[in-house]
Amino acid sequence: MKKVAVILSGCGVFDGSEIHEAVITLHAIEKNGATWHCFAPNIEQLHVINHASGEVSEETRNVLVESARIARGEVQDVALLNANDFDALIVPGGFGAAKNLTDFAINGAECSINAHVASACKAFAQAQKPAAYLCIAPVLMPMVYPQGVKGTIGNDADTAAAFNALGGEHIDCAVNDYVFDQQNCVLSTPAYMLANSISEAASGIEPLVEKLLTL
Amino acid sequence: MKKVAVILSGCGVFDGSEIHEAVITLHAIEKNGATWHCFAPNIEQLHVINHASGEVSEETRNVLVESARIARGEVQDVALLNANDFDALIVPGGFGAAKNLTDFAINGAECSINAHVASACKAFAQAQKPAAYLCIAPVLMPMVYPQGVKGTIGNDADTAAAFNALGGEHIDCAVNDYVFDQQNCVLSTPAYMLANSISEAASGIEPLVEKLLTL
Repeated sequence: MKKVAVILSGCGVFDGSEIHEAVITLHAIEKNGATWHCFAPNIEQLHVINHASGEVSEETRNVLVESARIARGEVQDVALLNANDFDALIVPGGFGAAKNLTDFAINGAECSINAHVASACKAFAQAQKPAAYLCIAPVLMPMVYPQGVKGTIGNDADTAAAFNALGGEHIDCAVNDYVFDQQNCVLSTPAYMLANSISEAASGIEPLVEKLLTL
Repeated sequence: MKKVAVILSGCGVFDGSEIHEAVITLHAIEKNGATWHCFAPNIEQLHVINHASGEVSEETRNVLVESARIARGEVQDVALLNANDFDALIVPGGFGAAKNLTDFAINGAECSINAHVASACKAFAQAQKPAAYLCIAPVLMPMVYPQGVKGTIGNDADTAAAFNALGGEHIDCAVNDYVFDQQNCVLSTPAYMLANSISEAASGIEPLVEKLLTL
């Protein structure tokens, strides 16, 4: 039975992992006969957003602790993620991917990446183990893979330009499709960068996970 | 296109709506050609649980605001829920259903129910509009429906006894099945009262939603 590591970035589209994408991903892993194992950085969130009003809250929350909501408590510090123990990696989207795993949401192409997240993702890349990045999470790919890595964030021109400025090669992609960089063994799909419903997000994520688990 | 009202109770299995159940439910509503519309009480949560450690936190959080994380901001105060505007109702589980919609988790069969939740649920019952309660949420049913309403929380003996003490008739049910009280037009399924995986939870929720939308 294949084991898939999943890196979460909190719990909620505006400051953490996009919940629908994360659940569709975990469910798809199960449906393809594999097991999921969640990880997250043990750091404060960049900020907390009131998801009803859209306003920034004065609260502080921890990325690992909030990610545990999606994982029903079954989450470990990403600093402990050893690629040798897993067959594949998936990073769901949500603004948390661009705020907590990297500071891309603030600094764009001048961003940095969390050191433990970088180590974990690079270990999968260097071992040529299959990996997938959803929604906005593909902005991590140029910081993980060699120059010219092919990926998609859908078709948003500014984000695509930033992806290219970081050293990637952005490819426009429909919501129900994915981009496969065969040389680097890495997949990406637009999910809620384009989706207008859970079904639309699932229409790209489900075939992506199925493909990932054949690699 | 049928419209389904969904009452959430926060965001996270231990103090709010069970996230997997909620997302599977919303996705199933879409897959059956209907639209979902989320509501939640605008009250403080009974408490906040650190989902990584299982410990009670000193934080306070609002049920409506946290429910908005699951609904991507699209959630309204349950006080505004008018059954006339919808074809069906679903209440997902998670401890939030038994902590924030009612105080069953504290007071067992001596519990009460949030007044706005009671009004909304009773309006569906009185109009004979189809409704469904998942996981632990069926403890609300005896407070909403006439004496003898048939429902399931799986097969936990203590909770089943409390369901009966509240005036319901508990029926043991497998995780991949549901109980249909035809007279009251209300469905229930055990979900994470019994499920050990997202797939197991989905194996009961998906046929329940399909059935609900044929009624």
